[in-house]
Amino acid sequence: MADSQVYLREASVHPAPEADPRVDALLGQMTLEEKVGQMTQITLEVIADKRQRPYMVDRAKLRRAVEDFHVGSVLNVVDEAYTVDEWREITGVVDSLSRASRLGVPVLYGIDAVHGANYTRGAALVPQNIGLAATFNPALVQEAAAVTARDIRAGGLPWDFAPVLDIGRHVAWSRFYETFGEDVHLASVMGVAQVRGLEGDDLASGVRAAATGKHFLGYSGPRTGRDRSSAFITERELREYYVPPFQAAIDAGVATIMINSGDINGVPVHASHDLLTGLLRDEMGFEGVAVTDWEDIKKLATLHRVAENEREATKMAVLAGVDLSMVPNDFSFHTTLVSLVRDGEVPLARIDQAVRRILTLKSRLGLLDAPAATGSTPEAVTAPASRALALQAARESITLLRNRPDASGAPLLPLSPEANVFVTGPAATSMRALNNGWTYTWQGDGRADLYMPEGRTVLDGIRAIAPEATYEPGAGFDGSLDLEAAASGARAADVAVVVLGEESYAEVPGSVTDMWLPDAQLALLDAVAATGTPVVLVLVEGRPRILGEHEAGADALVMAYNPSHEGGQAIAEVLFGRVNPSGRLPFTYPSGPNMLVAYDRTLSDDVDTSYGFTGFQPLARFGDGFGYTTFATSGLTVAPEAEIGEPLAVTVTVQNTGAVAGHEVVLLYVSDTVASVAPATERLARFAKVYLEPGESRTLTFSLDPAALSFVDARGRRLVEPGAFSVRVADQTAEFVLTGDAPLVLSTPAR
Amino acid sequence: MADSQVYLREASVHPAPEADPRVDALLGQMTLEEKVGQMTQITLEVIADKRQRPYMVDRAKLRRAVEDFHVGSVLNVVDEAYTVDEWREITGVVDSLSRASRLGVPVLYGIDAVHGANYTRGAALVPQNIGLAATFNPALVQEAAAVTARDIRAGGLPWDFAPVLDIGRHVAWSRFYETFGEDVHLASVMGVAQVRGLEGDDLASGVRAAATGKHFLGYSGPRTGRDRSSAFITERELREYYVPPFQAAIDAGVATIMINSGDINGVPVHASHDLLTGLLRDEMGFEGVAVTDWEDIKKLATLHRVAENEREATKMAVLAGVDLSMVPNDFSFHTTLVSLVRDGEVPLARIDQAVRRILTLKSRLGLLDAPAATGSTPEAVTAPASRALALQAARESITLLRNRPDASGAPLLPLSPEANVFVTGPAATSMRALNNGWTYTWQGDGRADLYMPEGRTVLDGIRAIAPEATYEPGAGFDGSLDLEAAASGARAADVAVVVLGEESYAEVPGSVTDMWLPDAQLALLDAVAATGTPVVLVLVEGRPRILGEHEAGADALVMAYNPSHEGGQAIAEVLFGRVNPSGRLPFTYPSGPNMLVAYDRTLSDDVDTSYGFTGFQPLARFGDGFGYTTFATSGLTVAPEAEIGEPLAVTVTVQNTGAVAGHEVVLLYVSDTVASVAPATERLARFAKVYLEPGESRTLTFSLDPAALSFVDARGRRLVEPGAFSVRVADQTAEFVLTGDAPLVLSTPAR
Repeated sequence: MADSQVYLREASVHPAPEADPRVDALLGQMTLEEKVGQMTQITLEVIADKRQRPYMVDRAKLRRAVEDFHVGSVLNVVDEAYTVDEWREITGVVDSLSRASRLGVPVLYGIDAVHGANYTRGAALVPQNIGLAATFNPALVQEAAAVTARDIRAGGLPWDFAPVLDIGRHVAWSRFYETFGEDVHLASVMGVAQVRGLEGDDLASGVRAAATGKHFLGYSGPRTGRDRSSAFITERELREYYVPPFQAAIDAGVATIMINSGDINGVPVHASHDLLTGLLRDEMGFEGVAVTDWEDIKKLATLHRVAENEREATKMAVLAGVDLSMVPNDFSFHTTLVSLVRDGEVPLARIDQAVRRILTLKSRLGLLDAPAATGSTPEAVTAPASRALALQAARESITLLRNRPDASGAPLLPLSPEANVFVTGPAATSMRALNNGWTYTWQGDGRADLYMPEGRTVLDGIRAIAPEATYEPGAGFDGSLDLEAAASGARAADVAVVVLGEESYAEVPGSVTDMWLPDAQLALLDAVAATGTPVVLVLVEGRPRILGEHEAGADALVMAYNPSHEGGQAIAEVLFGRVNPSGRLPFTYPSGPNMLVAYDRTLSDDVDTSYGFTGFQPLARFGDGFGYTTFATSGLTVAPEAEIGEPLAVTVTVQNTGAVAGHEVVLLYVSDTVASVAPATERLARFAKVYLEPGESRTLTFSLDPAALSFVDARGRRLVEPGAFSVRVADQTAEFVLTGDAPLVLSTPAR
Repeated sequence: MADSQVYLREASVHPAPEADPRVDALLGQMTLEEKVGQMTQITLEVIADKRQRPYMVDRAKLRRAVEDFHVGSVLNVVDEAYTVDEWREITGVVDSLSRASRLGVPVLYGIDAVHGANYTRGAALVPQNIGLAATFNPALVQEAAAVTARDIRAGGLPWDFAPVLDIGRHVAWSRFYETFGEDVHLASVMGVAQVRGLEGDDLASGVRAAATGKHFLGYSGPRTGRDRSSAFITERELREYYVPPFQAAIDAGVATIMINSGDINGVPVHASHDLLTGLLRDEMGFEGVAVTDWEDIKKLATLHRVAENEREATKMAVLAGVDLSMVPNDFSFHTTLVSLVRDGEVPLARIDQAVRRILTLKSRLGLLDAPAATGSTPEAVTAPASRALALQAARESITLLRNRPDASGAPLLPLSPEANVFVTGPAATSMRALNNGWTYTWQGDGRADLYMPEGRTVLDGIRAIAPEATYEPGAGFDGSLDLEAAASGARAADVAVVVLGEESYAEVPGSVTDMWLPDAQLALLDAVAATGTPVVLVLVEGRPRILGEHEAGADALVMAYNPSHEGGQAIAEVLFGRVNPSGRLPFTYPSGPNMLVAYDRTLSDDVDTSYGFTGFQPLARFGDGFGYTTFATSGLTVAPEAEIGEPLAVTVTVQNTGAVAGHEVVLLYVSDTVASVAPATERLARFAKVYLEPGESRTLTFSLDPAALSFVDARGRRLVEPGAFSVRVADQTAEFVLTGDAPLVLSTPAR
């Protein structure tokens, strides 16, 4: 398995697409109405026939959209997932009717397929991104994304609103599970993997889909964590943490960008020429399509109140750089923008620029030649290999954070299949908790269970190995409690597996005002722990809900994230040692709700030298996790001195010193000792996941380019400063000095 | 009582001090070592004789400081408060020995007297600033500050490190109680009142002291709320929320500024030329002395790591604009800075500028003519009028937030003295909770009780009115519990007064990772509420600790803040109706730990229009509070249209429609309907506190100047934009339109 640096270098050579002469030809023939139609995206609901279930297309409504408003794009589902055959019928009708229009430009259909083809019944779903991040296995993430692309294409859906490239700096955010966690390097690598998996080398191949880097920019940083509430992000943070995953994806050729629904520093991003044109286009070099999020142009007037009315809002957004408006419920965008152009308030050149990008995307996807569904078969969606891949991803995501010795002196995990196991907790029997949102339905509600009946809960998974395992819910997600039943079950068992977490949610409805795990679940943990029976705590949750001092009750601690329908089996396999866990925590698990600090903190966030007060005492740190074997790290070597700007080789040897084979995730951290802005205590620069048999060792060489040693200074410049640095892998550290007369500036803000 | 706008206008005409020719004469005679000595401030501990208690001055150590290092300033106490006579002895020795030096420049002694002369035994202490803010009575705050100045001057202490001008935007911050709350206008008015009270018209008068606006800038905004951890504050926020209280104080003539110990956006403020010179001097026009906080120059190297060593740190800080270094434990600053000047790394002109400011301050304080203690008598410190003023301030601060009807249908409060009252909760018997930190000792620990033996706890206060009141602690600050005793006490009573809150803390040791009120106290509240006996919940706390759904158990809710030693009496007087409460909440009391939002939120922080989700549901809002009478608001009038830039008159009538006399706090809010950055839903523009007899009414006219309608835009400019606005007082609203072709720009960032 290649280390991540090599991976990124490959990504950066993605070729620019060739221009299609048909695009300019079409543009030359288009009326203003037709052009603005290309910029208009409506939801399927607008053209659905609601007299039947499932909701299919109402041809009359579709005809009106296509003929009267020349609509160029449609998105998503009405209410819940379709079968692939239903998808083919829907997208086929939309495609053929639009293809029959005056110029024959087909509709581009987009879908939120964020952990597999999650709006296609029977499609295999991989863990949510936060779990994929925990695998530290970008090749696996890329492979899973390729399956997603193939599965949606099979339904005639050539455009995926993924990956989320928002950096997970706020664990309270309800979309945290859609991120790749808090680390910039990891999120960049995983985001690129997903883009490459979705897009491949040829978008027109029929098994690939256009990817969407979302949500540009700063969406994941609302002050309170509540979805779509106001964010205040300094220029330095924006460039240090939020820009890099997008830049990496753009360098890897991501076809489209979706815009952040929120406001940053009071400026709604949909109205920000500074961000959508100055930064995204002029600085970052993005040439694809910029699409709004849901109804966000109207919200400039109704919610953000930076525009007097929809007309002013539309003008703002289009001039700021929006190409395609996810309207999505009516046609007022179309009539408004046509009027703005006719009145000279929006130049036609801006319209042509947007439409050229949209038509180019359609050309790249092969849509000007054939319907999207061509090239991918419905049967592919239910291929067993897809479920096997989902299972593998779930297995690699599970993260073991604690494994105390039991009474015998051996670590509590793995459990013996002969052990008398008691299972409790609301997440033990919940498919919703395993799946979370965006699973066959928007909120991943109970209906989701029906669409992948093969899905196994944690209890199912355990009983597949230990059929006699007993179960009591103990506590419900609704706050209900039966502590006595749980305690009695625990007392009768050798070990209690307590499965806690969150039920499903997505976007705004998932917002919480309190990061504590609900009281009932904490009470259950306490009650089971009080019996004296050893406790394995399994957390099935999309964000790190606070355990506080209740964590002391867990003798073993397994973080499962949202591993999807194969997660029950994967968790059980880890508990019983059939899988040696190899996940690593992709974020910092806080110990209290008011101490949400990422691992790449400053020393001021860590300690106060006056009082010896340690401020950074999370439950677990980014990168934490281990398995059932042991690894030794040795021989960390770096040249003691190097000229600034030269690549730097770092060598380290890892050996499996335990009795079973397993993956080690080698994490290389860099620390800048002194810098012109307070430096991070450490930052992940490179990683690699290596598989080692017992006794086997491997020597890895990482190359650190200037970017890996860089930071963003007070003026927004990315630079490397000469001076002392150190690198760390596990318990090994080494120092080096960068020599030079001046900082090496890698980029300077143009705006 | 004048409304606040008039108040600010008075403040802004504070005359610039006349130049003293002796300053330049002294500067001309000084050696470099003597100059740098003037810039050096040490703590009393360095020159203390620790062989005796209380610690007094060790003349040999003092002589070394003055003769070898020419130390120009000393601060604070060694461990705990002194009597005023001890203070006079200490400052007298320091003064006379320094006055006997070659040029006879006396030492300037500074002290943290933040809620009265809190390091002087027997001095009366007023509520902490958060309680003073709740009075909405700036005249009272000014009067209290004048007492503080007189009391410290009596001990020979002419310089007070107050007021805190940090805006209270983060309720988890351990110094939140030292702020005037979250609102910019209120904090500005109260800050100016404290400056004017401390400084008066003549600093040399002998009963006044130099004030210190602290901590410049952004200290109150650390991301996690942990004291002195990293802050990320955007330029717009800095100018919208953090700058105005400092600007108001500078306009009111504040003599000194203390610098924020933290870093903003990675840049430690002590190293920021941009903030300390560009903003503070060039833009904001500050001409006084800028002093560091505790050891903060060294921390540029040891904590913030923006300097390689102390020498580089010293150079950075002095070039950034530091005039006086609170070293405070050794003399390395002196030797380092002398060496830097000799080596040409710090220009002598920068030294001269700093020393001129320091000498000018000494001149303005009259120190070049006479010792600081001259003009104020020790007896003044224990004047009964001071305790009476402290009591009045405590009374006016208490804020009634809920008063449900009891079984009889009448509001639960006020209580009858004949009622069978049960008191419980750890804060009921704690002077520490009433006082909080900075009370005779740094942490306001148990010794504080000894230094103001007249102080009464809440239980004392209640028993002074209802001697038969029973008491059980129920819960301790240490988490101890005796719920049965509390429940049994409550069952036997007509009403239960549950007094919860925080024990004392200051600065870093007061940091918390969880804003919830500790579990034991919540359990107590639940247990008492479960008895069915009506519950009066009294909160004695320096920041709004979360009650969550437990708040439902409170039939009446009284917020007491930290009212100091008269607070027990004041709270009891409110509970029994001897005082009609008139405090208003100066911050938003959150309902959950991860939803810390100030009242002047955006609409995005409030609601999501897609889902109808209401995000802003605090326990109580800024400005909430009422009393035992009712007021009607009517006739809110504003001209429907005005030219942008013209002052706008707003008229409103308030009438006491209840049966008892009382204060109404009239709060005038302004909303900008549409703006170029997402506007605040509303902002306090003016307020007035009026006393009305039953039936009496009063018509108030407020004048809104352009600043009151302004905001800071994305480019950091303060401006007023034409368009629709509304004003609100209580349940009355009125709309108006500002006409004009362009925004009126009030200020533009120079940097």
